[in-house]
Parts: sequence; structure tokens; C-alpha cells
Amino acid sequence: MSQLPRIAITTGDPAGVGPELCLRLLREPRVREVCVPVVYGDRAVLARVARALNWPEPCADEVLDIRAIDAHDFEPGAVSAACGRAAYEYVIRAIDDARAGTVSAICTGPLHKEALHAAGVPFPGHTEILAHRTGAPQHCMMLTADAITCSLVTVHVGLREVPALLSVEAIVDTIELTALAMRRIRGRAPRLLVCGLNPHAGEHGLFGEREEERFIVPAVEVCRAKGIEVRGPLPPDTAFLPKLRAACDAYVCMYHDQGLIPLKALAFEDAVNVTLGLPIVRTSVDHGTAFDIAWKGVADASSFVRAVELAAKLCSRAS
Amino acid sequence: MSQLPRIAITTGDPAGVGPELCLRLLREPRVREVCVPVVYGDRAVLARVARALNWPEPCADEVLDIRAIDAHDFEPGAVSAACGRAAYEYVIRAIDDARAGTVSAICTGPLHKEALHAAGVPFPGHTEILAHRTGAPQHCMMLTADAITCSLVTVHVGLREVPALLSVEAIVDTIELTALAMRRIRGRAPRLLVCGLNPHAGEHGLFGEREEERFIVPAVEVCRAKGIEVRGPLPPDTAFLPKLRAACDAYVCMYHDQGLIPLKALAFEDAVNVTLGLPIVRTSVDHGTAFDIAWKGVADASSFVRAVELAAKLCSRAS
Repeated sequence: MSQLPRIAITTGDPAGVGPELCLRLLREPRVREVCVPVVYGDRAVLARVARALNWPEPCADEVLDIRAIDAHDFEPGAVSAACGRAAYEYVIRAIDDARAGTVSAICTGPLHKEALHAAGVPFPGHTEILAHRTGAPQHCMMLTADAITCSLVTVHVGLREVPALLSVEAIVDTIELTALAMRRIRGRAPRLLVCGLNPHAGEHGLFGEREEERFIVPAVEVCRAKGIEVRGPLPPDTAFLPKLRAACDAYVCMYHDQGLIPLKALAFEDAVNVTLGLPIVRTSVDHGTAFDIAWKGVADASSFVRAVELAAKLCSRAS
Repeated sequence: MSQLPRIAITTGDPAGVGPELCLRLLREPRVREVCVPVVYGDRAVLARVARALNWPEPCADEVLDIRAIDAHDFEPGAVSAACGRAAYEYVIRAIDDARAGTVSAICTGPLHKEALHAAGVPFPGHTEILAHRTGAPQHCMMLTADAITCSLVTVHVGLREVPALLSVEAIVDTIELTALAMRRIRGRAPRLLVCGLNPHAGEHGLFGEREEERFIVPAVEVCRAKGIEVRGPLPPDTAFLPKLRAACDAYVCMYHDQGLIPLKALAFEDAVNVTLGLPIVRTSVDHGTAFDIAWKGVADASSFVRAVELAAKLCSRAS
């Protein structure tokens, strides 16, 4: 009997690179070494993609057939409500199975936010879907690569909304969740750095509304009192200099691009996305649906493979 | 007779690393090859630093003695109003001399913003001092290194103030000034990329208040109609991937950390700061006063040397 965890791998948007990446994953030895993969998607879609590429079709036990879309009712590379709806249904089923214990973790393929929106799904992305479906009271998005790891206090909101969404509690939650995850990943107490919100971390009140003093400083103090090794707020522009990157395991960032600009500049598209704070283990590819190269067989599966490997690692350590 | 341009080099905050860096610059062959350097500062301060380090004192014609501070009335590494005031006076004199034609360009040492503030100087940094003193109707801050160049539409303001400061006009100005400067630096028509404001450049209105469609898209269209090779708005997080960096000469960024986070992560502290749109040529070191290592003789002058080299290049091309 295999002791490896079963991991639900969702196809993502059927019109994107998700289906072909799932087909690749099923044939990838590094995936088979760490888990029993089960693709959550439409068997007919996967078969259509496999035929288009002259690749072998997946075996019966490799796919959980959700039957959410007619495989010939959409075209690769196009935004559609039908594909947005199908992608959403794959994720929902994977979440429910993970909660029920049928699978040990989920690893998600890329969604297209506009397709989700067209389908009337009231969430901008996976993180929000997962938080809502699992009822997680606190959660956060973390991206991790060899070169750099960043967690985000706010994620998919307009830049103008960021300052009003900061609170001591939200920052404490993000620091705590990041510390917990990095302890699992590193196998030791991690060292965290927290960025300020404003240029130069506000320069003692010269820029901004003292968000650093009001929210970030107290949050760091609360976490240090709990024994977490965390420093900040740092001026964001110098926080990612090589010397500081080498001296920390993860950054806690106030907004999406504060974390993702340096992460992608330094780690390219190798990062894995992890949702922290959920009652289930969930990782994801960091790239998008790449509609421009969908169904051409050229998409690179390395980010998805790394996401599966990390999911397996997180559920083995959790058990 | 030397055909080299005379360049005013301001000491910056006397309590920081500026004085020792100026002493190094005066003995640096790469500086002497491209200009006749004149340090704007206090001769007595430079002499005190030189004695503390057992370095030679500067010659008579190498320093313009501003006499703005008593050399024994302050300590290295400490914020003081006296030092903020002196640093401000060095810059003002250099600006006035450049406008009068006594020097061809100015290259500025690091200021300490809190010291300026303590001195009652109503500007947060060099860029604002220069714009006010020269009455420049439009200006912008650009940072340039071998790996990456970024211009900023907004600079030293709190993050919450950024969206309200964006306008088609401000973005057009920044694109035009950047194109002009990069044409001089590269000797050919440059290719520019413009970042969006919100995560994923707003994802067609999902995040933010459509600042991309309201301000950035029209600004890019205006500039393209004028013959500038410029693209955008790009999703900020993927804009700095290696493929895009290789395909452009400079980025136009909406706010301080959008440009400076990737610039410093990729170019460390090698970048040179240029103020565009002024009636004078002005470059600057990119690092700060480094009070923790002031007057110890260990500060690295390479950014300052590069700033002087770029100033010389910009004034030779301008003439």
C-alpha cells in the first residue's frame, strides 16, 4: 500500500495551459515520488487536449471527472463564462474533498480572473474562494521560491484601498501564519522581516499617516513577545537588498506588488503560491493561464511540479 | 587649458559619509578623467574628517568653502538641525552656481531627511529642493544602473496619497523626460515600459478605480503619437521579469517603491539618481548618509563615482 499522500490537482481554466500541465504532471517522476496525484477536471477536456498534442490520455484512476463543461463548447485561449464556471467547480470539489479527508492536500492550476468574473463567481481568485469555502477566520497568501519568500497582508485590492485595510490584528495574523509555515518548510524557527507601507517606512511620519507606528510597530512587538524572530518595519526599497535577503527566511509585505515585484524579479516564475491559515493544505502555480500559448504543448510545468512537491512536504510535516 | 566640465560635488550631511566620500572622489582617477571636481562644503569639516582618518586634506582649489557650520559643533552619526541646514546651503549654492554657469553640473552627496526637517527646510529631499530653486515646471526623479532604470511619477509621498496625484499630464511629463534623458544616455531612441498602479494593472477594473484606463492608457497614447516608443500599462509584478527588462531601456513607475524595490533588489546600491526636467544637470548618489559607518573610512565611493561620471556624460552630450 502506498504511504504517499493523495493530492488533488485542479485543472484551472480549461482554455488555458492548465490541462496540458496536468497531463505533464501525471507523467512526471518527481510528482510520483512524493504523492498520488488526482487531476480534478473534465476527462473529455483532458482527452481533447491530449489528442491535439498527440500525447497519451490519462488513465481512469488519474482523473476525477467533474463534468463541468462540454469539451467542444469553448476554444483554447479565449475568456469565457463557461470555462470560469468549470474552473471554479474543480476548486470547490477539491476543497470539499480535502476537508472530508479524501485527499491530503490540493494544488491548483491557473484561474483566469476575468473568466471567473464573467461566470458570476464573486471572488477575484483562489485565495478568496478558499477562505470563504473553508470559513477560515484568518488566512494569507504566501509566495515562496529558493531566492525569496513573501507573505501578503493585503492581496487583490486596489492600491488606494491598502492603507485602510491595515490593522495590528491583520499584520499579527500574517506574521504568525508565515512563521508557522516557514517553521514547517525550514524545519527550524524562521527569521522574518516586515516591510513598512510608505517610502522609507514613513521616515518617522514625514510620508503617510504614520501607518508604520500605528499598525506595524505594535504588530511586530506582539509577535516578538510571542517568541517569533521578526524585525521591522523596514524601508521597503532597501528591504530586498542581498544582505537582508540572506538574513531572513521570509518577508511580510503590506500589499500585492510590494511582495510580488521583488519576488518575480528575483525568482522569475519559479515561485509557488501557498494559502496559509486554512484547515487544508493548499499550494498553487504562481503563473497565469497563459492563453497566448494554451494547448500548444510548450508551457513549462516546473512551477506546477514545485507546487506539488511543496504540498506534499507541508502535508507530511503536518501529519 | 582643460576642456573637462567643472562639476560641483556637494558634501551632503556633514555628520554622514558624505565628507569622506568627497575626499575619496578628489583622489579618484576616474573622476579626474571626466571632470574638474569642486567639493561644495566646509573646508574645516573636510579637514577634521581627513585628520580623523589620517587622509590628506584637500587642496585649496578643490573645495568651495561654504562655511555653513562650525566643524566642532556636531558629532558624526547624529541627526542635527545644524548639519541639515549646512547640507541644504551646500546644495543651494551649487544650484545657483550651475544656473550662473560657474559649474556645468552638480552631483550631490547624501542628505538626511530628518536633519533637513529639524533645520526647518520645507522639502523632503534633493528633488524637491532642486525643482523649487530652479522653478522647473515639470521634473522627475530617475534612478539608473546597468541592470535597470526607473523613473517615478510620484516620489516622496505617503502610499495613500499616490492615486490622487496621478494625472495624464504628470504621466506624460515623466514619459517625455525619461525618453529625452535615455536618448542622451543611450545615444539612440529608447524603448520605455510603463507600469500600472494596481495589482495586475487593475485587471480591467477589478482592482482599483480604473486609474490605468483613466490616466495611464491615455498618457501612453499621447506619447506614442509624439513618436516615443513606449508600452503599457503593464502588470507591475511581472513587468520586471528578465525578458521584459531586456526589452526596455527604462521603466516609468507610478510610485517610489514600485520603481525602487526592483531597482535596489537588482542593482543593489550601484544606481545613480538623476533629476530630469531641470535647467541644470544634476545627479546624485543613490544611498543615504549611513550614519552608522560615518567617518570610519569604510564607506564605498563607487555609487558617487558613477554619479559623477553620469553627470559628466549628460553635460558633454548636452553641450
